[in-house]
Amino acid sequence: MFQLLRDGEPRTRAELATVTGQARSTIAARIDQLMSSGLVAPAGDAGSTGGRPPVTFAFNPGSRVVLAVDLGATHAHLAVTDLASQVLAERSATISIADGPDAVLGWVADAGAELVAEAGRPLTDLASVGMGLPGPVEHSTGRPINPPIMPGWDDVDVPGILSARFDAPVLVDNDVNVMALGEHRAAWPDVADLLFVKVATGIGAGLISDGALRRGAQGAAGDIGHIAVHSAADVPCRCGNTGCVEAVAGGRAIARALAESGLDATDGTDVVALVRSGDVVASQAVRQAGRDLGTVLAATVSLLNPSVIVVGGQVAEAGDHLLAGIREVVYQRSLPLATQHLRIVTSQTGRRAGVLGASAMAIDHVLSAEAIDAVVG
Amino acid sequence: MFQLLRDGEPRTRAELATVTGQARSTIAARIDQLMSSGLVAPAGDAGSTGGRPPVTFAFNPGSRVVLAVDLGATHAHLAVTDLASQVLAERSATISIADGPDAVLGWVADAGAELVAEAGRPLTDLASVGMGLPGPVEHSTGRPINPPIMPGWDDVDVPGILSARFDAPVLVDNDVNVMALGEHRAAWPDVADLLFVKVATGIGAGLISDGALRRGAQGAAGDIGHIAVHSAADVPCRCGNTGCVEAVAGGRAIARALAESGLDATDGTDVVALVRSGDVVASQAVRQAGRDLGTVLAATVSLLNPSVIVVGGQVAEAGDHLLAGIREVVYQRSLPLATQHLRIVTSQTGRRAGVLGASAMAIDHVLSAEAIDAVVG
Repeated sequence: MFQLLRDGEPRTRAELATVTGQARSTIAARIDQLMSSGLVAPAGDAGSTGGRPPVTFAFNPGSRVVLAVDLGATHAHLAVTDLASQVLAERSATISIADGPDAVLGWVADAGAELVAEAGRPLTDLASVGMGLPGPVEHSTGRPINPPIMPGWDDVDVPGILSARFDAPVLVDNDVNVMALGEHRAAWPDVADLLFVKVATGIGAGLISDGALRRGAQGAAGDIGHIAVHSAADVPCRCGNTGCVEAVAGGRAIARALAESGLDATDGTDVVALVRSGDVVASQAVRQAGRDLGTVLAATVSLLNPSVIVVGGQVAEAGDHLLAGIREVVYQRSLPLATQHLRIVTSQTGRRAGVLGASAMAIDHVLSAEAIDAVVG
Repeated sequence: MFQLLRDGEPRTRAELATVTGQARSTIAARIDQLMSSGLVAPAGDAGSTGGRPPVTFAFNPGSRVVLAVDLGATHAHLAVTDLASQVLAERSATISIADGPDAVLGWVADAGAELVAEAGRPLTDLASVGMGLPGPVEHSTGRPINPPIMPGWDDVDVPGILSARFDAPVLVDNDVNVMALGEHRAAWPDVADLLFVKVATGIGAGLISDGALRRGAQGAAGDIGHIAVHSAADVPCRCGNTGCVEAVAGGRAIARALAESGLDATDGTDVVALVRSGDVVASQAVRQAGRDLGTVLAATVSLLNPSVIVVGGQVAEAGDHLLAGIREVVYQRSLPLATQHLRIVTSQTGRRAGVLGASAMAIDHVLSAEAIDAVVG
């Protein structure tokens, strides 16, 4: 019954009884329990055809808050949101994930507690914590699995460490899955099949299929950065293989190519700055990176038949050149049936994709049918 | 409540009330309705601690039958099964899908009715019909969408034509999705993430993700035959593009390569026969086809992280050479996390994959929560 109310619409007890097929007495008891938990609140009178108008009830997203944490190799973005992912307070900082879990999670706990206070809420209002990490994560346990750029984090019980500080459940996933969830919920809630592609130093994807994030057997779904592309056959990749798309189309790879042309570039930020300054060589390099990435995305279109591909991450900030290259190859290489309604767009949530996704993941956990059943007995 | 009973285990009314949280009176009424429909039957007495032992009830898969139809370009395979996909009668025949929907569906209706009679059941016992077709199908309507090898079938109301004959719901999907469903249910029911690859004249895949078939936005998911591979860059494909994996690793493409070596081969059947006769050139060609297909499957492993890849279809009957080529490339090109528990195997259901999947699709429809709610009011 509560799942019905999550849309925010006010309903009367009678309406809830009709839609759920449950007895009026059952509905009344559940409403009482949800009201005492604060998750549901009276929402005024319904229109009436005469007599005393019946009271309506609605989901009360302000009753609790969640802490959303988006960690990258060198950045942290934290937000406190209500249960409808409205941001109440947020903070960005420069960190180094390589400082290890004790230092980083200690800082996250301190900053998170300050942010909850800044939002004007006691820590007891914190319902859950959602976190994205820049590496493979076993979602069921929240433990990183051999993360290449996170020394000291392998198999660390991240939820255990943070829930000791917050006394709340902690959900962890890799950053690209979290960004995909954030973009999907905020910008494309009615699209069932969406691919979110992050183009930064690394390249990765998050898969939304039939409306839900799909993580695969070991949580490694979407790890497209090491798929081979023709044009990169001899290019060595940090993974130990050669020819990976990341080795030619990642931010640092594009910067390296530009440096070889005599431009001053070492990472994706420099690439974006050069493109924005109107540098033609940089724009051409980004467009070629889009073509190389396009050969991989053409294969994902054939395999998954999404209706939307969202391109996010730092390099996407270079603008239309990346998308133009992607579109050029995807529309040439994919079958008409799979591309006739396909949209390829840049992220609408931008740098907020991660915290919005972490918030959604944290909220989904506390408002799941199982969690609510525990509340209402 | 009925969904609980689908596992076939007998349960008492009291057990069902405990597990579902529904009132004893509600359970008793629903059991009565399901018994009068035949879907549930008494299953003997439960053990008792004294007094009259309580009666148990169980799903009765023999109460109704479904007709499962697997149509290819030149073959038809029909089966009548019970509601647990046990085959009660089956038949194979040579057809030509290019004869068009009137001729082919007329024949299917006649043969299907004969098969129901052969299974000893009246047509009124037929609960539904499931069908796989060799082309893209809009699953929600059952209509083929511009199917390349099915002249005259575009946008034809296949369910409408067949349900006029059978007075039962008709579910239609493309043949590879149906084969994936059949293989998954029969051989890998506990695996959540599985990729079924059909290698015949064409190459296609069916995706099982988080336990369910994923069709994508237009039902075109799994259409991997036209993904580009390095080794085929200049090879023209029947789709109008060049470099498609189907153009080098499909049955007819392998046969063409063998014919150029002076061997007598025109299609996949000939290739399989040559391999089985011990021809080294044919075995090498099949292994190379496996490698070419492997480059595409390596990308799908990175993208989807399945725990099982099942290779089926006619060319898979050539045996280990195809799998050896696939494994060689997939294990070299995919990330360790995605391959450490990955199994790559041949189909266990073989030529029955299609009818078993069509049966499962038909049964799922009639035993869905919505359909059962309609039965029990």
